[in-house]
Amino acid sequence: MLHGLMQDRPLLISDILDFAERHHGDTAVISRRVEGGIHRSSYAACAARARQVANAVEAERLAMSDRVGTLAWNGYRHVELYFGVAGSGRVLHTINPRLHPDQVAWIVNHADDRIICFDLSFLDLIGQIRDRCPGVKKWVVLCGPERLSDEDRASGLVSYEEWLAAQPIEYRWPVLDEHSASALCYTSGTTGDPKAVLYSHRSTVLHAYAIALPDAMAFSARDTLLPLVPMFHVNAWGIPYAAALTGAKLVLPGPQLNGASVYELIAAEGVTFVAGVPTVLQTLIAHVEAGRLGFGSLNRVVIGGAACPPAMLRELRENHGLEAIHSWGMTEMSPLGTLCTMKAKHNDLSADQQLPLRAKQGRAIFGVDMKIMDDTGTDLPWDGVSQGHLMVRGHWVVSSYFGAGGDKPVVDADGWFATGDVATIDADGFMQITDRSKDVIKSGGEWISSIEIENVAMAHPDVAMAACIGIPHPKWDERPILVVVPRPGASVDRAALLASYQGKIAKWQIPDDVVVVDSIPLGATGKMLKIRLREQLQDYQLP
Amino acid sequence: MLHGLMQDRPLLISDILDFAERHHGDTAVISRRVEGGIHRSSYAACAARARQVANAVEAERLAMSDRVGTLAWNGYRHVELYFGVAGSGRVLHTINPRLHPDQVAWIVNHADDRIICFDLSFLDLIGQIRDRCPGVKKWVVLCGPERLSDEDRASGLVSYEEWLAAQPIEYRWPVLDEHSASALCYTSGTTGDPKAVLYSHRSTVLHAYAIALPDAMAFSARDTLLPLVPMFHVNAWGIPYAAALTGAKLVLPGPQLNGASVYELIAAEGVTFVAGVPTVLQTLIAHVEAGRLGFGSLNRVVIGGAACPPAMLRELRENHGLEAIHSWGMTEMSPLGTLCTMKAKHNDLSADQQLPLRAKQGRAIFGVDMKIMDDTGTDLPWDGVSQGHLMVRGHWVVSSYFGAGGDKPVVDADGWFATGDVATIDADGFMQITDRSKDVIKSGGEWISSIEIENVAMAHPDVAMAACIGIPHPKWDERPILVVVPRPGASVDRAALLASYQGKIAKWQIPDDVVVVDSIPLGATGKMLKIRLREQLQDYQLP
Repeated sequence: MLHGLMQDRPLLISDILDFAERHHGDTAVISRRVEGGIHRSSYAACAARARQVANAVEAERLAMSDRVGTLAWNGYRHVELYFGVAGSGRVLHTINPRLHPDQVAWIVNHADDRIICFDLSFLDLIGQIRDRCPGVKKWVVLCGPERLSDEDRASGLVSYEEWLAAQPIEYRWPVLDEHSASALCYTSGTTGDPKAVLYSHRSTVLHAYAIALPDAMAFSARDTLLPLVPMFHVNAWGIPYAAALTGAKLVLPGPQLNGASVYELIAAEGVTFVAGVPTVLQTLIAHVEAGRLGFGSLNRVVIGGAACPPAMLRELRENHGLEAIHSWGMTEMSPLGTLCTMKAKHNDLSADQQLPLRAKQGRAIFGVDMKIMDDTGTDLPWDGVSQGHLMVRGHWVVSSYFGAGGDKPVVDADGWFATGDVATIDADGFMQITDRSKDVIKSGGEWISSIEIENVAMAHPDVAMAACIGIPHPKWDERPILVVVPRPGASVDRAALLASYQGKIAKWQIPDDVVVVDSIPLGATGKMLKIRLREQLQDYQLP
Repeated sequence: MLHGLMQDRPLLISDILDFAERHHGDTAVISRRVEGGIHRSSYAACAARARQVANAVEAERLAMSDRVGTLAWNGYRHVELYFGVAGSGRVLHTINPRLHPDQVAWIVNHADDRIICFDLSFLDLIGQIRDRCPGVKKWVVLCGPERLSDEDRASGLVSYEEWLAAQPIEYRWPVLDEHSASALCYTSGTTGDPKAVLYSHRSTVLHAYAIALPDAMAFSARDTLLPLVPMFHVNAWGIPYAAALTGAKLVLPGPQLNGASVYELIAAEGVTFVAGVPTVLQTLIAHVEAGRLGFGSLNRVVIGGAACPPAMLRELRENHGLEAIHSWGMTEMSPLGTLCTMKAKHNDLSADQQLPLRAKQGRAIFGVDMKIMDDTGTDLPWDGVSQGHLMVRGHWVVSSYFGAGGDKPVVDADGWFATGDVATIDADGFMQITDRSKDVIKSGGEWISSIEIENVAMAHPDVAMAACIGIPHPKWDERPILVVVPRPGASVDRAALLASYQGKIAKWQIPDDVVVVDSIPLGATGKMLKIRLREQLQDYQLP
């Protein structure tokens, strides 16, 4: 094959930062600090300090590809670590500080982290794991020296500002192979041990291009971006990279995700874009509505991490004039797979007519492809009705997990990765998650969405929490039952609850029984652990 | 180095088409045909026919990387060839049909084209070159069989529709090395032979991502794009690729670039975006203003290929409410380098205050970088005043020319390509072309922009055309003189013309003399050939 004669340059994360420094050097990076107060930085300052990070990592004699862990909120120092660590050829490992200390220690050791950089908020957590993580040679606290006690120092902690101050700002980014590992992120692991996804420079840069497109998050140098999604959750959905790639102003909320704090940042900094999970956004909306405030310069909201209630989509649009964009992805996808932006053909629909479409998870951005298939591996039609296992492939989709024994591929022969979700896709390519593959109930050859069953139950005034699970059945394979926790002070009437399903779903989909319990087991990220629930109900018999 | 564990898939042009077919299959591709009438296609139809193109190319037993030439206007068949030829692993070679037949023959032979596909408009041209291009084994006319005469057939011409009809629509795109050559484009070659730029799949896909960004052309699935720039000019600035990548509707004007025809398409098809050179856009604006029409759904215009007069930028904005985006690039850059979109800091400027900024060529999109340097290779400051040689580098910038003897690199040791332009860059990264490197006048260590001198002369009512060139000077190295063609019926008064420079430019920049001529030599694309003008004036003596 004849090769093209264009410049062959690797796609590198350091190039994103160089670009931001050269072309958007005075664009602000604003952070609410753990120590209190608002910190004002810029891409130029960020780039200089990222080079100091790289020098500091070199000074610690880390080998190429060694991991640097972070336990940190969204803030400028975390951004510096994102670029400085990856740019230097090492791997940034963001750790979810909300996990149990045992899990944090397990993850640090599994990743073989050499340095851990952490916010002051996590001093106690670090105290609990330090002795169990012998591979870590340096513990860096993301603060100035004045914040460390003599005891802290004596125990070997160093402040980030001291660590950087010892380093020059001059550094020449290495020209890496673009396939080099850049960042590491562990899944929440509701079943079994967490799995480690290892991103590359190439996958990160391509993902950053794609998520900045008009039909994705639409980032420009006129935007001010506030990622409410934590930087320890799949790189804050890639927003820090895409912000620098487009020269957008970045506003980072630190540990304060309550409505008042977030609203203050939006108003003070002219935020145009926020992204987050529904629960955090709900807190913000509640604050705005309680105070009869306006959202000011904000014009759009990307919602992901969990299905967004249609009522919230409607509220954001009707009450606040915001474009509410539903999105879907996963750690294994860097994370963005789909966003729910309209096509030209939907221009003439009213907001009400668009709502059912906007409640879907959306359509693929170029760079990822998707399909649905049945249990036998046969592709299912894109008719908006057929439910199947959602499969994805693309430039920023996982091929295998890190440290999972021989790096064995987790994709099929055609390169498709099973998301573990069950979904429909309509003729226009709009995908809607209907269930998790392990939760969907298979009854008489048809699939029943446990989520759909739960949503109906949750609308009932007496129900605080509801889980739908499949129980083995001699004739139908499985039949759904509903496990509910009553609201405090309320009691759940089995017949009345089942009657409430009439007319809402097909008759054969209505659960066979209701089991009332005191609580349903939840995982670290608040998801119901149905596997545990099934264990608890192992002696249960269908009526 | 540890590699990331993400899917390693090549960046391929065929993936763009697959994506458009799967996710935007019913999105329209509308064309005005050479044969008359409007043709309605879709990405699904386009993809099926592109696969037929690939099968047809295979049936001709073309080797991988063999070239398929086109002499064609903007139309659906040309789009099918773009994707079908490149997707199959061959190289699409778009030829400028406005060149002299001798040049076309030279280019076809230099490229070693195996098949030529051409619009009916170019039957005569092909008749003139066929015998001189023995390497071409097939001549395909982009029409149905009914358009070919018996004589045409007897001479070996085949119609495109017959050629395709013989082929199945099933075809499995080869998984190519992403560095494989995909398309070939010759520069206009105002000096010496045309130079050949060979694009790769990788450079094309990355360019498509970048030009679709909000700060570039901002393409979405709600857009209807009308490229007035021909598909034989640097792949219509990459618009066909980026349209498919985003699922935007595509409207192709065929050979009719007059105001009435273009306006008819804009109105009938709900066009939201046009891109073209200033002269073609001027024709469109004149039509709209003469008929007191509105631009309807159109909301933005990208202008490139030549500097856009500030008056046109103002007119589009003030009279028509359109966003007029100045842009800059070159064949060697795929072509996009900069676009002039505002930053957040410019939000508060009035339209009048923004105008001087919008008249600049704009700022870089991520993926290309630029700098200016003096004759000694020293970098110059980004102060908006210092003029220097404009250097670029990036993923879609040329590294060497095709067939130019040993593929010797045309970049310096740090990978920078000399654009041949002279420019300033301001502190915000906005670049403005002030001259061509070979045209700038170097007087007493300072650079005088020939373009700036010419613009002042062109504003004079008696001047039809003006060229400023440097004449050797014993003390100042060079001094500028002005060569002018008077308007019909007018005569140019030397002293009055020179007096008109007072207060407009620095005194030492005012030309030393005015030479009145009947005509100034022009090249094939309408550019002044100053090299020829200098030859004509070789006996000229400064006063």
